[in-house]
Amino acid sequence: MSKVFDAAEVAKHNSAESCWVVLYGKVYDVTDFLSSHPGGVKAILRLAGADATEEYDPIHPPGILEENLKPEALLGTIDPETLPKPAAGEQSQGEAEGPPPMESLFNLDEIEQVATKQVSRKAWAYYYSASDDLATKRFNTEVYRSILLRPRVFIDVAKCDLSTSVVGQKIGLPIFVAPAAMARLGHPAGEAGIAEACRSFGAMQVISNNASMSPEQIVENAAPDQVFGWQLYVQVDRKKSEAMLARINKLKAIKFIVLTLDAPVPGKREDDLRSDIIASIPASSRVVTKKEENQSDTLPDGTPVPKEGGGGVGAQLFAGTECSLTWKETLPWLAKHTDLPIILKGLQAHEDAYLASQFTPQVKGIILSNHGGRALDTAPPAIHTLLEIRKYCPEVLEKLEVWVDGGVRRGTDVVKALCLGARAVGIGRPALWGLGAGGVAGVHRTLEILAEETRTCMRLLGVEKVEDLGLQHINTRIVEQQIYDGPSQLGGLVSQLRAKL
Amino acid sequence: MSKVFDAAEVAKHNSAESCWVVLYGKVYDVTDFLSSHPGGVKAILRLAGADATEEYDPIHPPGILEENLKPEALLGTIDPETLPKPAAGEQSQGEAEGPPPMESLFNLDEIEQVATKQVSRKAWAYYYSASDDLATKRFNTEVYRSILLRPRVFIDVAKCDLSTSVVGQKIGLPIFVAPAAMARLGHPAGEAGIAEACRSFGAMQVISNNASMSPEQIVENAAPDQVFGWQLYVQVDRKKSEAMLARINKLKAIKFIVLTLDAPVPGKREDDLRSDIIASIPASSRVVTKKEENQSDTLPDGTPVPKEGGGGVGAQLFAGTECSLTWKETLPWLAKHTDLPIILKGLQAHEDAYLASQFTPQVKGIILSNHGGRALDTAPPAIHTLLEIRKYCPEVLEKLEVWVDGGVRRGTDVVKALCLGARAVGIGRPALWGLGAGGVAGVHRTLEILAEETRTCMRLLGVEKVEDLGLQHINTRIVEQQIYDGPSQLGGLVSQLRAKL
Amino acid sequence: MSKVFDAAEVAKHNSAESCWVVLYGKVYDVTDFLSSHPGGVKAILRLAGADATEEYDPIHPPGILEENLKPEALLGTIDPETLPKPAAGEQSQGEAEGPPPMESLFNLDEIEQVATKQVSRKAWAYYYSASDDLATKRFNTEVYRSILLRPRVFIDVAKCDLSTSVVGQKIGLPIFVAPAAMARLGHPAGEAGIAEACRSFGAMQVISNNASMSPEQIVENAAPDQVFGWQLYVQVDRKKSEAMLARINKLKAIKFIVLTLDAPVPGKREDDLRSDIIASIPASSRVVTKKEENQSDTLPDGTPVPKEGGGGVGAQLFAGTECSLTWKETLPWLAKHTDLPIILKGLQAHEDAYLASQFTPQVKGIILSNHGGRALDTAPPAIHTLLEIRKYCPEVLEKLEVWVDGGVRRGTDVVKALCLGARAVGIGRPALWGLGAGGVAGVHRTLEILAEETRTCMRLLGVEKVEDLGLQHINTRIVEQQIYDGPSQLGGLVSQLRAKL
Amino acid sequence: MSKVFDAAEVAKHNSAESCWVVLYGKVYDVTDFLSSHPGGVKAILRLAGADATEEYDPIHPPGILEENLKPEALLGTIDPETLPKPAAGEQSQGEAEGPPPMESLFNLDEIEQVATKQVSRKAWAYYYSASDDLATKRFNTEVYRSILLRPRVFIDVAKCDLSTSVVGQKIGLPIFVAPAAMARLGHPAGEAGIAEACRSFGAMQVISNNASMSPEQIVENAAPDQVFGWQLYVQVDRKKSEAMLARINKLKAIKFIVLTLDAPVPGKREDDLRSDIIASIPASSRVVTKKEENQSDTLPDGTPVPKEGGGGVGAQLFAGTECSLTWKETLPWLAKHTDLPIILKGLQAHEDAYLASQFTPQVKGIILSNHGGRALDTAPPAIHTLLEIRKYCPEVLEKLEVWVDGGVRRGTDVVKALCLGARAVGIGRPALWGLGAGGVAGVHRTLEILAEETRTCMRLLGVEKVEDLGLQHINTRIVEQQIYDGPSQLGGLVSQLRAKL
Repeated sequence: MSKVFDAAEVAKHNSAESCWVVLYGKVYDVTDFLSSHPGGVKAILRLAGADATEEYDPIHPPGILEENLKPEALLGTIDPETLPKPAAGEQSQGEAEGPPPMESLFNLDEIEQVATKQVSRKAWAYYYSASDDLATKRFNTEVYRSILLRPRVFIDVAKCDLSTSVVGQKIGLPIFVAPAAMARLGHPAGEAGIAEACRSFGAMQVISNNASMSPEQIVENAAPDQVFGWQLYVQVDRKKSEAMLARINKLKAIKFIVLTLDAPVPGKREDDLRSDIIASIPASSRVVTKKEENQSDTLPDGTPVPKEGGGGVGAQLFAGTECSLTWKETLPWLAKHTDLPIILKGLQAHEDAYLASQFTPQVKGIILSNHGGRALDTAPPAIHTLLEIRKYCPEVLEKLEVWVDGGVRRGTDVVKALCLGARAVGIGRPALWGLGAGGVAGVHRTLEILAEETRTCMRLLGVEKVEDLGLQHINTRIVEQQIYDGPSQLGGLVSQLRAKL
Repeated sequence: MSKVFDAAEVAKHNSAESCWVVLYGKVYDVTDFLSSHPGGVKAILRLAGADATEEYDPIHPPGILEENLKPEALLGTIDPETLPKPAAGEQSQGEAEGPPPMESLFNLDEIEQVATKQVSRKAWAYYYSASDDLATKRFNTEVYRSILLRPRVFIDVAKCDLSTSVVGQKIGLPIFVAPAAMARLGHPAGEAGIAEACRSFGAMQVISNNASMSPEQIVENAAPDQVFGWQLYVQVDRKKSEAMLARINKLKAIKFIVLTLDAPVPGKREDDLRSDIIASIPASSRVVTKKEENQSDTLPDGTPVPKEGGGGVGAQLFAGTECSLTWKETLPWLAKHTDLPIILKGLQAHEDAYLASQFTPQVKGIILSNHGGRALDTAPPAIHTLLEIRKYCPEVLEKLEVWVDGGVRRGTDVVKALCLGARAVGIGRPALWGLGAGGVAGVHRTLEILAEETRTCMRLLGVEKVEDLGLQHINTRIVEQQIYDGPSQLGGLVSQLRAKL
Repeated sequence: MSKVFDAAEVAKHNSAESCWVVLYGKVYDVTDFLSSHPGGVKAILRLAGADATEEYDPIHPPGILEENLKPEALLGTIDPETLPKPAAGEQSQGEAEGPPPMESLFNLDEIEQVATKQVSRKAWAYYYSASDDLATKRFNTEVYRSILLRPRVFIDVAKCDLSTSVVGQKIGLPIFVAPAAMARLGHPAGEAGIAEACRSFGAMQVISNNASMSPEQIVENAAPDQVFGWQLYVQVDRKKSEAMLARINKLKAIKFIVLTLDAPVPGKREDDLRSDIIASIPASSRVVTKKEENQSDTLPDGTPVPKEGGGGVGAQLFAGTECSLTWKETLPWLAKHTDLPIILKGLQAHEDAYLASQFTPQVKGIILSNHGGRALDTAPPAIHTLLEIRKYCPEVLEKLEVWVDGGVRRGTDVVKALCLGARAVGIGRPALWGLGAGGVAGVHRTLEILAEETRTCMRLLGVEKVEDLGLQHINTRIVEQQIYDGPSQLGGLVSQLRAKL
Repeated sequence: MSKVFDAAEVAKHNSAESCWVVLYGKVYDVTDFLSSHPGGVKAILRLAGADATEEYDPIHPPGILEENLKPEALLGTIDPETLPKPAAGEQSQGEAEGPPPMESLFNLDEIEQVATKQVSRKAWAYYYSASDDLATKRFNTEVYRSILLRPRVFIDVAKCDLSTSVVGQKIGLPIFVAPAAMARLGHPAGEAGIAEACRSFGAMQVISNNASMSPEQIVENAAPDQVFGWQLYVQVDRKKSEAMLARINKLKAIKFIVLTLDAPVPGKREDDLRSDIIASIPASSRVVTKKEENQSDTLPDGTPVPKEGGGGVGAQLFAGTECSLTWKETLPWLAKHTDLPIILKGLQAHEDAYLASQFTPQVKGIILSNHGGRALDTAPPAIHTLLEIRKYCPEVLEKLEVWVDGGVRRGTDVVKALCLGARAVGIGRPALWGLGAGGVAGVHRTLEILAEETRTCMRLLGVEKVEDLGLQHINTRIVEQQIYDGPSQLGGLVSQLRAKL
C-alpha cells in the first residue's frame, strides 16, 4: 500500500483492458468495476489513466468509493509532483473576486445571475439545462405571470403567519426545497448546507436520490422538528433500492418518501450534453478503447446508445434507473419496504392524479411537476395540471395533499399556487443557485426573499393564514383558456386498473 | 446657541449612543429623538456625525424639524469651511445643460425621458420603481392599448368641453393629479409647483400624506375655485392623524379626504431599495453601532426587519402607518374627525367597491387603483376592476363616483376610462416627471398635452361633452376576455359586514 | 416690375408688419395676405424676409400664387447672387448615388426603405407619421397577417383576371391609389406621375384635396378610359369648395367625389410635428413678431393654438377645414353642387355604414378607413369595421360599394379584403413611397408588385375572377374574437336621423 | 469532334442568334435548344458564351444533356488554359475549415446553422426561402410549440417501437423525407446520399420531380425493403410526364406516386429571387439580346413575365408545369399511366380532403402541406388542416392515410402530428440542411436526432407503439381557437364534382 506511482506510469493504464484512476492522491485499478459503474463505462474511461478527483468529488457522496471497490483495487499513492498542473480557470467561470453580499441581492433572478458567474461551467450546465428548447422551463414561470391577484382592503393585516403542515408535520413555510441533485457541484457546502439554511425557517427539504452527500450527512445537524423527505428513483437492481430504503427508515428526520415518476427516461438537456462534449474535447489523455467502439450501439429495446461523450451529468445519474414502474407492481413493493408516507412526484395529467387518489392511505400526496422542464419539452406546468384536476376531478384535492413545483420565482407565485389548492410549493433550481451564489448564506437569502415576498403578498390580499387563501384571491381567466378540454379517461382507466390489481 | 463646531468634532457623534447631525448649517443632538423618527433609526444613523441637509431637505416639509425636536437639541452652528466639499455630480444624473424647451416635448414618454436625465438617481428610483418585476406597472398602460376606439362621422365637433364635476365641485379637466409623495425630490418647486400648473387648467390635485411641503404651503396660492383633496394614511399613533385632520379641516381649498387602502404594507420596489443600498455603500462615515446590530431583527408579528439599509424612500415613508384598518372601525373614526366627503382609494375587487357603496353618504366615491403598480405585482389594472364592477354590481356606478388612476399616458386613455364610467382619471408619475423635467412649466406641459389629446380624441369620436362618452365609443372585447370570472362574494361579505357593525 | 432687390433688403421685411418673401426669383409683399393664408400665419412668418421657394414649391399647386395674390404684391426680382448658398444636404437624406433599379426591389417594404433614403426628412416625416404611438398604423398591417388563407387544389388556374368595376366604371385592378396629399414633397413628378403609372394598369386614382398639383394637371395625360375620383375636404368658406366642385365637374376623367369624414380635426402626428420643430430651430432669420405672440392662444371653442411652429405639414393642410359636417346638412349641399356619385370616406363603425346606406342613390359607396392611422390612435382597422358590418348589418354590402384602405402591403392583403366583400382596396403611403423611391417607375413597380402578388394569391386559392372571392377562402377566426360586441345603436340613430331630416 | 476552341471564340456566341456554352470541358451550340429549355431562355442566355458547368451541374441529373441535345450540337472541346480562373470564394460561404463532427450537433437548428455556412449562397437561398414574409414558414413550426403534451406515469416504457406502415409498406420510422428539389446544390452526394442515410433507419423517401439526380441513380443502392415514392409535377407537355411515369413504373423500389397540387404556380420566394439577381449583376459577360428584350412581356393569360433575371431556382424549376389540373381530368389520366397508389400532396382545406376521399381506391392518401410555406404566405399549417378535417369530416381519416409535412423540428412535433391522426410526418428542409452540413452523415444525424427525440417523447407519454398515440396525449386547446369556423362547402362541392364526372 505504500507504493508510490508517478503519473506517466498511471497514464499507460488508460483502456478498458487496464483502467487506473487517481482519486484523492491514491491510485486505483478500476478495470473490474467498469461494467458495474452506475454512470456508465464511458464516464470512467474518459478519465482513465489520469487524476479524476476534480470530476469525481462533487458528484459522489463520501464513502461510496470504499463501498464499491474491493480493497485490492487500491494500488498505492501518486507522486503529486508528477501530475500536470491544472490550467488556471479551466473549470470555473467565477470572477476572481467572490460574490457580492447576499443582502444586496433582491430577488431570485439576481441570485441566479451571481451563481452563474460563481459556479463551474459544468455545474451551470447541469443546473440550468432543461429539455429541448426550454419551452416548458420558460412556461413554468410565465404561467404565474398570467394569473392576476385580487387584493382586498380594510382588513387588519397586522399579523401574518406562513406556517402550515404537510403529511401531519408542522412546517414554518409553505415553501420547500424540491429534490435537486448534485448540490456539491455548485458549492462544497452541498445538500447539508441547504439543510442548514432550511433550519432557520422551519422549511422542509426533499433529499435527492442523487444527492452528492449521504442522507445521514445531510440530516446530521437538523433541528429536532426539522422535516425532510427522501426522493426515490427505483433502481433496476431492486436490492440496491431496498438497501437504501432500509437506511432511510432508520433516519428519524426523514418523514416521507417521494417516488419520482416523471422521468422514467432522461429528457434531452442540450446544455448539459453540450457541456459534457466540450469537456471531453480538449483532454488529450482521454481515450476510447477499440473494444468500447465495437460494443453494440443499441440497447436491448433498440434505443441507440448516445454517441456523444457520457451524455451529460443528467444522463449519467439516470444510469440504472428502472423505467418500467407500474401502479400495480411498484406501490405494493414500496409499501413492503417502508412505513413512511408516500408522495408521488411528477404527475402531469388529471387521470394520474385521480388514480393516485385510489391508493390512499399509503399514498398521502402527489407533487404536480414536470421535472423543472427537464423531462419532456412542451409538457404542461404544474398550474395547468392543478386547474385540470379542479375541472375534471376536484375530489382529489380532498383525498390527497397536492404539492407543486417548477418555475416559482416570486412570493406571488407561491401564493397563487396555494390559492389554487396546493399544500406546499417547491423550489429546485433556486435553492441550487442560492447555494452556488453564496453557500449557506445564499440559500438562506433565497428562502428569506421568498418568505418575505409571500408574506407581503398575503397581507396585501388581506389574508392572515395560509389556509385562508382561496380561489377568490386570484383571477385565472387567461390560463383557463389553455386547459385541456379533450376526452378524459377517468372511468376507463380506473376499471382497467382495478381489473389488473 | 452661538457655539460654532467644526466638522471633525461633529463626526465623533456618529452612533446611537451619541448622534449629532448638521442641518441647514446648524448642529443638532438627535440621540433622544432616534427611536421616535417615523422613518426609522437607521435612516438617521446613516447620516450620524455628518451634514444631512442634502438628504433631509427634499423629503421633509419645512417646519417639521422644529415641531419634533426639543429646543435644547440645537447645539450650535457648524463652521462651513470644515465640511467636506461635495463631489461634483454625486447626486444628479442631470446633464450639464438644462432640459430642452417644454414645448418641444410632444408626449408624456418624452417628458419622462427628459426628467430621467434631470433628476437625481434617488428621485428617479423612487418615482420609477414599482413592485417586483413591474408587471402591473406595465400592464396598467398596456391595457389601455388593447381597448379600441369607435370614431363616428358627420357630427358637428366645432365645440368640445372638458369640464366636469366631482364631489359636487366643478373642475376644468376630467384629469387630476393623484397623490404622489416627495415632489421636492424631483424639483424644488415641489407640490406647490404642481398646484400652480393645475390652476391654469382648473385641474384637481390630491395632496399626498407624504408631501414634501405642508398642505398650507401647497394651497397657499390656489385660485378661489381650485379644487384639492388630501390623502390620509392613518398612523398607528391615531392622535397624529387626528391632529392632521384638524389642520386639513381648516383649509377651505381642500374639498375631500382620500383614504388610501391599497398599501397597508409597502410593496417591494426594488429600484428604490437598490438606490438606497447604492447610496449607503460609498459613505465611509456612515456607521451602524454595535447596539443597533444587537436589536431584534424581527417585528412583533414575525416580519423580519429588512437588512438592507433603510429600505428605500418608500419604506421610510411607510414607517408608522397603520396596517389594521377595517370597514367597521376606521370609517366611523374618520367621520368623527372630519365632515369632508370621503373617497376610498385603492379598491381592486368588485366586492370592495360594493362594500364601499354601503357606506354612503359619508363615502362619496372610490378610486380604483393599484398604487401605480407599487404595492402588489400582478394586481389588476383599474380598468379591470371597473369592468369587474360593471359585470358583477353595476349599481355601484350609480351610488358612488368611481375614479381611476394608473398607467394613463395618452388622452385616448383618459377617454377610454371615461367611456367605461370613470368620473375622473388620475395621473401620478406623469405629474412628477413633468415637475422633474421642467418644474411648473413641465407639469403645465404635461396637463396641456393630455388635455389636447383628450379633446382631439373626443372630437374624433364625435362627442362634445364628457358626460356623453359611453360604452358605444369603445371596443373592450379583448380586455373582457381577461376579467375575473370566479366566485363573487358579494352576498356573504355584506351580511358578514352587517353582522359586525 | 423690373426692380431688382438684394437679399439683405428683403431680409428686413421679416415681420407681420411687413412681410416679404422670395418665390421663384421674384419678390412678393405678402403682408396683406398673411391672415388669409390657409396654412396659417406662422407658416409664412417663419420664412419672412427669405427665399421661400424650396419650402413653398413642393406643397403648392402651380398657379395658386397668382390666384391668391393681388398683382401689386409682386415687387420685383431678387438678385440671385445675393442669396445665401444652400448648405449641402440640408434638405435631403438621399445618398449621393440614386436609388437602385426598381426591378431589384421585390416588395413594398423594400420600396419604403429606398424612399426613406431618397426623400427629404420633411417628406419622410409627413408620409411616415401617424397619430400618437402609431398603434393603429401598425395594427392596420398586422390585422391582415392574422387572417389565414384557404388555398384549394385541382382547379384550373391558367387564367386569372384582376379587372373589376367601381361606381359603374371598369378598372384594371381592384387596387386604387387612395387620396394622399403632397406628392411633390417626395418627387417632382408628383400626382401626375402617379397618374402616369396607374395608366399602365388601368388602376384608379383618387386625387387628394391637398394635392401638390392641380386636378387639371393630374388628369391631363390620362388614358381615355382611366378612372379618377376627387377627394373633398369641405372648407369653412363653402364658396371655395363650391368653386372647386365646379372645376371638378368639368373634368371628364373624374368619375366620383370622395367626401372625407374621418379627420374633422387633425390627428396628432408627432413625427410630422417634430420635423417641423426641427426645421424651425436652426433658421436664425426666422422670427415671430411681438404682435403674433400677443394673439390669443385659444380658438373660440377653447382649443389651444399649438405653440410649436406650424404644427407640421399635416396641421397646415387642415387649416380652413370645416369640422361641423352633418348627415342632414352636408349631403344635400354637396348633391346641389355636383351630379357625380358620392363616396363617403373614413367610416369606422357599423352604425355609420348603416346610416350611409340610407342616403342612396346619391351616395354610391363608402371607404372604410382610419386615415392610415393618422387621425385617432387605437381606432380600428378597416377590416374590423368590415367584419362589424357583416355582423350587425350585412345588408349594407348589398346597397353600397364598400372600399377599404390602410395597411395594405401584400397581394394577399388585397385578396383578404376582397374576400370579405370589399369592392376595391386602396393604397396611400405605398404610392407615395413608390414615387419617392423612383418617380413614375417607382409607382409602376409598386403597382406591378401588388398586382402580381394578388394574381398569384388568387390562383393559389383557385379563383379566376375577383367577384368569385368569398368568405370560404379565408379564416378570420382570430380577428373575429376582437370585433365589437357592445351595444349597437342602429335603430335609434336612424329614427333620430329621420326626425332631423 | 476533336476540335479545340479557345474561350475568346466561344465568348462571341453569346446571343439568342448564336448561343454556345461550355459544359464539362465540351463546347455545345444550344441555339436551337433555347426555346425548349424547361428552365426558360434567359437561364441559358445568362451563361451564353461562357463555361456554364458550375451552374449547370448541381441542378441537372446526369445524362439529361445527351437526352436533350442532338449529337451535332457538340462542337468540340475547350482549351482549359484559356478559361478565366474562378474568383476564390465566389460561390461558397463555407468556412475554410469543414463542418464540426455531426455528433456534436444536438438538434436540427444547429444542423441548419452549420449548413448555412457550408453551402453556397445560391443553395442557401433556394432551401431557406419561402413566400413573401415567411409568415407561414414560421407558423408551421410555432403551431407545434403551442400544442402541449400530456405525459403519463407508472407505465412500463422499457420498450418503444417507431415502426409503422404506409400504403401497405412497413417502414422503420413514422418520419419520411418529403420531396425537396435540388439536393446536389447543397452537397454532391445529392438525393442518393439522402437515400443512403434513410436506409439505416428504414425511413421512407419521396423523390422530387426536380431531383438533381435521376430516379434510377437515387434508388440504385437501396435496401431490398427500402420504400420510395416519386413526386409528380404534371408537365404541360403530357408526353413528357407519361414517359417519366413509364420509367418510374419500372423501378420496384418506388411504391407510390405523390401528385403535387399545392403549387400550380410558383410562390414568391424573395430570398431565392434575390440570390438570382445578385448572381446576375457582377457577371459582365452575361447579356440579354435585343431580340429577347423585344419579346412580349406578358404570357397569354396576362401574367407579366418577371423582369428580374431568371426568377430564382424555384421559378426555373416551375417552367413547363401544368397549372390547370382538375379532379375530373387529371386523376383518370394518371390512373391510366400507373398502377401505383396515388398520394395527393398539398391539401389545405377540409373540403379538398373530403373530395380526395371520394377517389379511393386509386387515391390512397393525402399529404397536408403548404409546400413548406413556399407557395402562399399566410396559408394554414398542416396541423390546422388536420384539425379542420377532424372538425368537419373526421371520416376522411378512416378512408385515407393522412400525412403531414412542414415545420417539423423536434421529435415532440412528430408525436403531436401522430396523436392527431397523421400516419407519417415529412421533413423537407431538414433533410437538405443535413445533407448540406455533412453529406450522408448529416442526413443520418438528422434522422437519428429526430428518431431519438420521438422515442423519448413516446416513452415519457407512456406509449410503446406509434398506433397507440391519440388525442388523449395532447392539449390542442390554444390551436383549436384558431381553426376555421366559416361556411363549409362539403355538400355543394361533392354534388358539383359528381355532376362533372
